Amino acid sequence: MNSFGRIFKISIYGESHGNQVGVLIDGCPAGLAISEDDFTEDLLRRKSGAKGTTLRIEDDKPILLSGIFNGYTTGAPILISFQNKNTKSEDYNDLFSFPRPGHADFTAKMKYGGFNDYRGGGHFSGRLTLGLVAAGVIAKKLINSVSIKAKLVEAGGEKDIDSAIKNEDSIGGIVECIAENISVGLGEPFFDSFESVLSHAVFSIPAIKGIEFGSGFQTAKMFGSEHNDQLIDATGKTVTNFAGGINGGITNGNPLVFRVVVKPTPSISKTQNTFNFKTDKQEELKIKGRHDVCIALRVPVVIEAVTAIVLTDLMLLEHKLPRVISNKSAR
Amino acid sequence: MNSFGRIFKISIYGESHGNQVGVLIDGCPAGLAISEDDFTEDLLRRKSGAKGTTLRIEDDKPILLSGIFNGYTTGAPILISFQNKNTKSEDYNDLFSFPRPGHADFTAKMKYGGFNDYRGGGHFSGRLTLGLVAAGVIAKKLINSVSIKAKLVEAGGEKDIDSAIKNEDSIGGIVECIAENISVGLGEPFFDSFESVLSHAVFSIPAIKGIEFGSGFQTAKMFGSEHNDQLIDATGKTVTNFAGGINGGITNGNPLVFRVVVKPTPSISKTQNTFNFKTDKQEELKIKGRHDVCIALRVPVVIEAVTAIVLTDLMLLEHKLPRVISNKSAR
Amino acid sequence: MNSFGRIFKISIYGESHGNQVGVLIDGCPAGLAISEDDFTEDLLRRKSGAKGTTLRIEDDKPILLSGIFNGYTTGAPILISFQNKNTKSEDYNDLFSFPRPGHADFTAKMKYGGFNDYRGGGHFSGRLTLGLVAAGVIAKKLINSVSIKAKLVEAGGEKDIDSAIKNEDSIGGIVECIAENISVGLGEPFFDSFESVLSHAVFSIPAIKGIEFGSGFQTAKMFGSEHNDQLIDATGKTVTNFAGGINGGITNGNPLVFRVVVKPTPSISKTQNTFNFKTDKQEELKIKGRHDVCIALRVPVVIEAVTAIVLTDLMLLEHKLPRVISNKSAR
Amino acid sequence: MNSFGRIFKISIYGESHGNQVGVLIDGCPAGLAISEDDFTEDLLRRKSGAKGTTLRIEDDKPILLSGIFNGYTTGAPILISFQNKNTKSEDYNDLFSFPRPGHADFTAKMKYGGFNDYRGGGHFSGRLTLGLVAAGVIAKKLINSVSIKAKLVEAGGEKDIDSAIKNEDSIGGIVECIAENISVGLGEPFFDSFESVLSHAVFSIPAIKGIEFGSGFQTAKMFGSEHNDQLIDATGKTVTNFAGGINGGITNGNPLVFRVVVKPTPSISKTQNTFNFKTDKQEELKIKGRHDVCIALRVPVVIEAVTAIVLTDLMLLEHKLPRVISNKSAR
Repeated sequence: MNSFGRIFKISIYGESHGNQVGVLIDGCPAGLAISEDDFTEDLLRRKSGAKGTTLRIEDDKPILLSGIFNGYTTGAPILISFQNKNTKSEDYNDLFSFPRPGHADFTAKMKYGGFNDYRGGGHFSGRLTLGLVAAGVIAKKLINSVSIKAKLVEAGGEKDIDSAIKNEDSIGGIVECIAENISVGLGEPFFDSFESVLSHAVFSIPAIKGIEFGSGFQTAKMFGSEHNDQLIDATGKTVTNFAGGINGGITNGNPLVFRVVVKPTPSISKTQNTFNFKTDKQEELKIKGRHDVCIALRVPVVIEAVTAIVLTDLMLLEHKLPRVISNKSAR
Repeated sequence: MNSFGRIFKISIYGESHGNQVGVLIDGCPAGLAISEDDFTEDLLRRKSGAKGTTLRIEDDKPILLSGIFNGYTTGAPILISFQNKNTKSEDYNDLFSFPRPGHADFTAKMKYGGFNDYRGGGHFSGRLTLGLVAAGVIAKKLINSVSIKAKLVEAGGEKDIDSAIKNEDSIGGIVECIAENISVGLGEPFFDSFESVLSHAVFSIPAIKGIEFGSGFQTAKMFGSEHNDQLIDATGKTVTNFAGGINGGITNGNPLVFRVVVKPTPSISKTQNTFNFKTDKQEELKIKGRHDVCIALRVPVVIEAVTAIVLTDLMLLEHKLPRVISNKSAR
Repeated sequence: MNSFGRIFKISIYGESHGNQVGVLIDGCPAGLAISEDDFTEDLLRRKSGAKGTTLRIEDDKPILLSGIFNGYTTGAPILISFQNKNTKSEDYNDLFSFPRPGHADFTAKMKYGGFNDYRGGGHFSGRLTLGLVAAGVIAKKLINSVSIKAKLVEAGGEKDIDSAIKNEDSIGGIVECIAENISVGLGEPFFDSFESVLSHAVFSIPAIKGIEFGSGFQTAKMFGSEHNDQLIDATGKTVTNFAGGINGGITNGNPLVFRVVVKPTPSISKTQNTFNFKTDKQEELKIKGRHDVCIALRVPVVIEAVTAIVLTDLMLLEHKLPRVISNKSAR
Repeated sequence: MNSFGRIFKISIYGESHGNQVGVLIDGCPAGLAISEDDFTEDLLRRKSGAKGTTLRIEDDKPILLSGIFNGYTTGAPILISFQNKNTKSEDYNDLFSFPRPGHADFTAKMKYGGFNDYRGGGHFSGRLTLGLVAAGVIAKKLINSVSIKAKLVEAGGEKDIDSAIKNEDSIGGIVECIAENISVGLGEPFFDSFESVLSHAVFSIPAIKGIEFGSGFQTAKMFGSEHNDQLIDATGKTVTNFAGGINGGITNGNPLVFRVVVKPTPSISKTQNTFNFKTDKQEELKIKGRHDVCIALRVPVVIEAVTAIVLTDLMLLEHKLPRVISNKSAR
């Protein structure tokens, strides 16, 4: 299912080298003011261009096709599309017989019987995250009292980007996200714990291979007496925040803190070995095309987006956000 | 929502000190032979009793109440319950006014307006994992060609259990799970990526605070040329398995490998500070009751269970498992 | 899927001649006072005993097994079970080879490969509606400002129950339901129109074969100028109510009015012809066992129950009902 | 939720006088050959132009924007849009203060706080059924061994279309649908009975106010001995088909037979009374714009579409349709 959310529901669609990519948002409260300018900042943060990111430049202009009328959301489904213009499909001709290591070429071929659109990764492309970022912009506006900030806190370990570029290689990274002013009471004791729902959304972002909350994997080395966050006052504020803002699957009002690990871009120019289905043996592959050296540089804004989407959905579920933003006066 | 799964759907219910806990399983294929003995091994692995686990001993006998007839699943919902017998509720009287650090006492109180059953953690109790393990037993039988093995690979860092016991403290741990002989093609490109669905299920287990796949957080320190797993043959077998068996959100046929971090049991006998709503200030709390020193010891079988549940659901979705296990001959 | 609802979620389970039948209710707001006495009236209305209903008498006592604490709902899943005591399974031995006309014997056998519990209809039995009625009782308490009244408005056409009894036959009927004081704004323009959601729930009741809203099938004979309900005032009140309280899939605040048709009980004592799988030809079947002559007599309370369940779910979705009924004072 | 389906999932979007309307289809099996020509016949059947249908003529050309590659479905979400060109929005200026009887003007205003796009009915418009028909075309191709035929069997009772036109009025109708060669075993015993799922889909079509299966409401007048369909042979074939092809919520292999009632178009040119929010009293309304006299004329193809969508979804669920239509040979 390429959909997410129970009340505020997101579906993404499109292919890297097809006509367009985009997002369909169902269940957005009516009455939210939305203009195309609202999307600019986050789309720019996601956009390629910085050192370490791909040379493919799209203008990434969002086209608002439904669900918005006179500048406000109407309560009907919102379709936002992004046209694909700058595609070079000839770079991707032989992914079926010669799948790239670290990519979905092999799994897509097997799952879809060879019918998948392989051009530029097709539906698996990181370009699909445009729709996530666009939905995130709307979600952020809906929950504007919440502050969500994600940033790259580690890239490539001791390796730097310059050496990766020189070696035609790529590097991974770690992104940390902190969200403040969260409602108490979001999430369920079991299957829809806050961690369950957030990680579900986060792992929809290509290249994420791990997530940890609060003190995360370091928790394994702590005593309970260290890890337990002492409550200070009646609002639930704690001295430390090793829990990352969640107890028993439910937000406790302290900052939500989590980190994700982003793998190195699997597309690298350096020569690699992989299996060739035509010759039936391993052979050397030299990938052409344009690639990010460190895709993690572009991930923070996507992490913020899915966090905002999750918070919006759970706040609607818990009646912490209204179904209509405000009543318009006389018409 | 205390349910999980699209086709093979699990709902858990019950409270630690209520009448019972259990699980309702909807969508189980008909024709699977099930007896109470099938549950013994995994329930024993989960059961308390070993050093470091709670002194509360329940007989944990599963009662099969519906959906099974003449020793076979019928296709109708399966209800499995576990009676609660050995409860000492007087130990848990003041959690509303004096919430325990690291527990859900505060969040449950806030979310449910003070109506939650607080005795022994109520619906938040680790005892609810009995239902997960029971559903996991059925799932494992359904997908019996898949091998799923989870084990504790780290406990308490350099701290050992004996010192934790002596100090009336608790320790965390890391559990690794490896599943072999997985079908290729499980999972979706985006919102229902295999990692999304599995992590959703895994974070329903109390005390889990992180998950990583394959090389996990170490991936941040790797070059793409290191992390990319080279394909060897037409089955998709790879030289390394840094991806943990998943590319583009879809299983690739290599072993599924993931690790989770388990926090130290928040209940410790050691004195702690927390906020007292009655006196409106921080005060010392000494928790009575019976607790695990290292809950991580009991987690592996639960991790296996949710992994089996996820695999069953996705295999049914992809038509890799039949809706009826076999046709009974003449009746 | 044997579940219904997005927020207030109902799952039913059990078999007619198994250990028990019951319902699991997830997402019920915390803080609702519930006692076993609350269920008495509606369970009696559903219960057998009146002329035209089955001789099988169960005490139908609801057992509240989870999700209720100190007399209030806790917000955790509520399990309610009904023990089966008065079963005579020997009456139902040969349904696999000799399926009863009008019953699910054949379809169940085919769908479940012959593994279904056939005793007394198994999971297909009307006895499963006990769980619906129990959930309906809770729903009615949650939305106690709404009045829901269903009654039998036609039974057997010109046939009467006495002649049906004399002829070892059965008759059908029509049940009308009127719900007043409905919130405006429940339902969605398309796939979750109010009619969609309500009919989905209603057709889960065995023996229902049709539903119509407002002027229903008579609408086909009306001019638009007759059928259009004129608005009178700013609350949306209309002169007529041919729409049955719904426009564009959304409740308009006028009474919800709908009718359902209930088929005659398929189990009749009169001799019938059906296919015998053992002899491979049509043969005469004489059904033993205890049956309702007019199952429609017991349907009104079940119709009220599912209506209350639907309204509760949609009111929670639209924030017309709180997630916690009230905050308890000092504890 | 403007989505439908568990495996083959349909979401519709758009507004009558906005940029476009369309449908997003998720979960379509890969490998189905699709071209724009496939849509022509059904779109023409739905299209306006015949006597009794609206004067608004759109070219209704489907634009396939994603999920199709080299003429085959890829397994990724399929977006199909229809541009709106021939709109006259000035006809619809005052629906907020002066809601049309029988329309969603009042309910939409209340539900969405006055933010809904009211032009031409906005998201409530019958134009949205274009997306249903398009999805139905794909569904029909997927289940091409099933024959689905819907037709208008009654229109306006004794009233005829000419008199309705003369009187600036509109008439309703009854549409019957028969689907043959249905798989046995589709549907669930309770909440997802075949009738539940189909009626859920059918009531998403604007103007439908009732549905009945098999002998439908006439069943109320039948004895059980009349209504019970006798089985003839081992395939489940029955002498009569009063059940409409469904027993116990599950298809029995006999033809699926159901009828729906379609209300008269609420938009009529004849003068009507309704409430004027500006003057706070009932006043006469004369509706301008272009309207169908008998919308039921255009409904059969939409009924076929949703029937095909339901069958596709349930057949995928029951593994009666493959996830990939065929494996492409060497690439």
